[in-house]
Amino acid sequence: MAEAKVLSGAGLRGQVAGKTALSTVGKEGAGLTYRGYDVRDLAEHCEFEEVAYLIFFGELPTAAQLAAYKAKLKTLRGLPQALKTVLENIPKEAHPMDVMRTGASMLGNLETELSFAEQQDATDRLLAAFPSIITYWYRFSHDGVRIETETDDDSIGSHFLHLLKGEKPNALHAQTMNVSLILYAEHEFNASTFTARVCASTLSDMHSCVTAAIGSLRGPLHGGANEAAMDMIEKFTSPDHAEQEMLAMLARKDKIMGFGHAIYKDNDPRNGIIKQWSEKLAADVGDTVLYPVSVRCEEVMWREKKLFCNADFFHASAYHFMGIPTKLFTPIFVISRLTGWAAHVMEQRADNRIIRPSAEYTGPELRKVTPIAARG
Amino acid sequence: MAEAKVLSGAGLRGQVAGKTALSTVGKEGAGLTYRGYDVRDLAEHCEFEEVAYLIFFGELPTAAQLAAYKAKLKTLRGLPQALKTVLENIPKEAHPMDVMRTGASMLGNLETELSFAEQQDATDRLLAAFPSIITYWYRFSHDGVRIETETDDDSIGSHFLHLLKGEKPNALHAQTMNVSLILYAEHEFNASTFTARVCASTLSDMHSCVTAAIGSLRGPLHGGANEAAMDMIEKFTSPDHAEQEMLAMLARKDKIMGFGHAIYKDNDPRNGIIKQWSEKLAADVGDTVLYPVSVRCEEVMWREKKLFCNADFFHASAYHFMGIPTKLFTPIFVISRLTGWAAHVMEQRADNRIIRPSAEYTGPELRKVTPIAARG
Ligand SMILES: CC(C)(COP(=O)(O)OP(=O)(O)OC[C@H]1O[C@@H](n2cnc3c(N)ncnc32)[C@H](O)[C@@H]1OP(=O)(O)O)[C@@H](O)C(=O)NCCC(=O)NCCS
Ligand SMILES: CC(C)(COP(=O)(O)OP(=O)(O)OC[C@H]1O[C@@H](n2cnc3c(N)ncnc32)[C@H](O)[C@@H]1OP(=O)(O)O)[C@@H](O)C(=O)NCCC(=O)NCCS
Repeated sequence: MAEAKVLSGAGLRGQVAGKTALSTVGKEGAGLTYRGYDVRDLAEHCEFEEVAYLIFFGELPTAAQLAAYKAKLKTLRGLPQALKTVLENIPKEAHPMDVMRTGASMLGNLETELSFAEQQDATDRLLAAFPSIITYWYRFSHDGVRIETETDDDSIGSHFLHLLKGEKPNALHAQTMNVSLILYAEHEFNASTFTARVCASTLSDMHSCVTAAIGSLRGPLHGGANEAAMDMIEKFTSPDHAEQEMLAMLARKDKIMGFGHAIYKDNDPRNGIIKQWSEKLAADVGDTVLYPVSVRCEEVMWREKKLFCNADFFHASAYHFMGIPTKLFTPIFVISRLTGWAAHVMEQRADNRIIRPSAEYTGPELRKVTPIAARG
Repeated sequence: MAEAKVLSGAGLRGQVAGKTALSTVGKEGAGLTYRGYDVRDLAEHCEFEEVAYLIFFGELPTAAQLAAYKAKLKTLRGLPQALKTVLENIPKEAHPMDVMRTGASMLGNLETELSFAEQQDATDRLLAAFPSIITYWYRFSHDGVRIETETDDDSIGSHFLHLLKGEKPNALHAQTMNVSLILYAEHEFNASTFTARVCASTLSDMHSCVTAAIGSLRGPLHGGANEAAMDMIEKFTSPDHAEQEMLAMLARKDKIMGFGHAIYKDNDPRNGIIKQWSEKLAADVGDTVLYPVSVRCEEVMWREKKLFCNADFFHASAYHFMGIPTKLFTPIFVISRLTGWAAHVMEQRADNRIIRPSAEYTGPELRKVTPIAARG
């Protein structure tokens, strides 16, 4: 074996593990770009489906291309009976990310990607079906109803809100979901995407890669942070209370969810955008606590630790104001990030070598097996 | 952002991505060690459950510890009704690795690992239940029977063969399964284990990590190779025919499954062992084709390309001689490797930083969104 090179950072931080043409994170002068477009520009001018198209195909669609793509996605919202049966067998107490993971995995049994020629179809199907999967389970397990998941909603975000609440969303909610889905769509070699790429590097199928990525996104250091942030801020009764509690947490050296980032050093470009929408929603619902509490948390963390809100922090209050149950926050992240994951899988497949690093060994020296009777 | 360091090799080959005390691969003078023991020594003297204990707890068990551990595993072979229902809803045509992945994921809904204090219990449950999961689905979908998965078989290997065939295995088969499970148990930072560690680094749960790893193992460049090797060798009618076909494949620059390795450079220490068992089984069944064909393939690949058999190649014929359907080969790998995956998850958790590398950007420069009507 050739001598393995020892890297400086833990967690492969700052180490290049491959190439991508999909996005840049933390590049000078442009906080986050998808295919060369600033995410702020995309969030202001585009629909999520338009951004998904961009991520998959490399260019923004024309009006006709976008209409055709949305029409295709609309036809893919229904769930096969066997998948519904699986979802009906998952208890109410289950973790919704486990439901998403199982839903994606089960779909792989029923509609297996048999060759890479099917990768875009398999992806589109997952993109259209994820809102159906999570809401079908949620409404069945919590409300005892079997919902019809084929709707004529214009967008993926509206489809999700419609299924969840049983009525079409208003314009403000539809717009917020659209922006949110754009912000979460793609983020270079984050942990869940890197999971999907490692899986893809064995030439496994799309459903395996996506299922694996969902498992990684579930963790509280990654996608799970938006739920953890919500659990924290809803305990604070006022900005002063929030400040007091934050200071106590910092003194105890707790990790505070929704803050900090592996790559960005002083700002997450997604935060400014979702914060504005959270503010609009706060005004809409007449909130006088959660939004000001959130703003104070941001101030305290910056003042005390130079830690800034990442994409997850103001997503918590925004989703809450829209009446989305906290436990469904990370599944929304899945619905969006599926685009990035799948595009990275396709990119890995197009120029592949199995991802197989080495380890530094810290265990015992070579030793001989002692007969079992002589041990102890 | 700090400047990212560009690595020399693709696929992180030869790059240290973390520490482990679990195994060494390709270290001078010891081809493969688990916790300091040569895998050849373990395969000759130990039971698989003994090796699993070693991998998890760091030391070989005493006779009493082994008996207690095996007794515990025996109690964990039954499947909850909701999981059986899921398995019954997976069609006969499904890929058995998709079944394993879905089974692991579904169990995570029913018996969620709620804190890391439960990690060993969650692991033991998966270890005991995997043979039940795959055979329950296989027998139901292929033979239309609902099998009882709680048996009193002494070992995991025998439990699997018993459920698959409906009768207890003979000693030769039980021994071969035991050796096979030991050989596949652990292998440092291979792609599926690295997948599990990336997932674990977000502090996700055990079922997510294992489900993700199954997805990676499914790929033909990784665990899927034993099935691909079988599909190839069973087409060869004689050693000469095999040689002729292999030469043609090499001339076409085809990848030949079951050969080569990312780390080992001239020998896979697991091959010599499983090859012996394949030879014994060939004699047992009176084979005069498949084993000699396999031997010729090995000779040709070494002579022509200095490529050697990896662990998967002689596993194909060995499993075949035991009457195991080809499509169940990789699921057996899962049953075994679960030990390595889970131990790596525990190790990652004990000293964690989120695994989040960087990428080299190859996409377009910063550009502005063109209004949709002006595109095309
Ligand atoms: C995102 C995150 C995982 C990045 O991890 P990382 O790249 O390994 O960064 P580090 O943990 O090395 O952070 C550097 C320092 O800031 C501290 N820090 C980082 N994020 C922190 C947080 N949210 N709360 C408190 N301290 C934090 C670390 O403890 C570390 O301090 P130390 O050097 O004294 O140990 C980390 O910031 C975090 O855990 N944040 C909370 C979870 C979250 O919101 N995740 C969603 C990300 S989009
Ligand atoms: C195991 C494996 C993925 C390792 O991949 P890797 O570390 O990237 O090794 P490389 O692909 O760089 O191999 C080096 C060279 O040998 C060739 N090679 C490696 N394995 C080969 C095989 N099985 N058949 C034909 N050629 C092979 C490669 O094509 C490469 O040639 P090149 O330099 O002309 O491109 C690779 O050997 C392989 O695909 N083997 C077959 C699948 C298999 O059996 N997997 C189970 C592993 S336990």
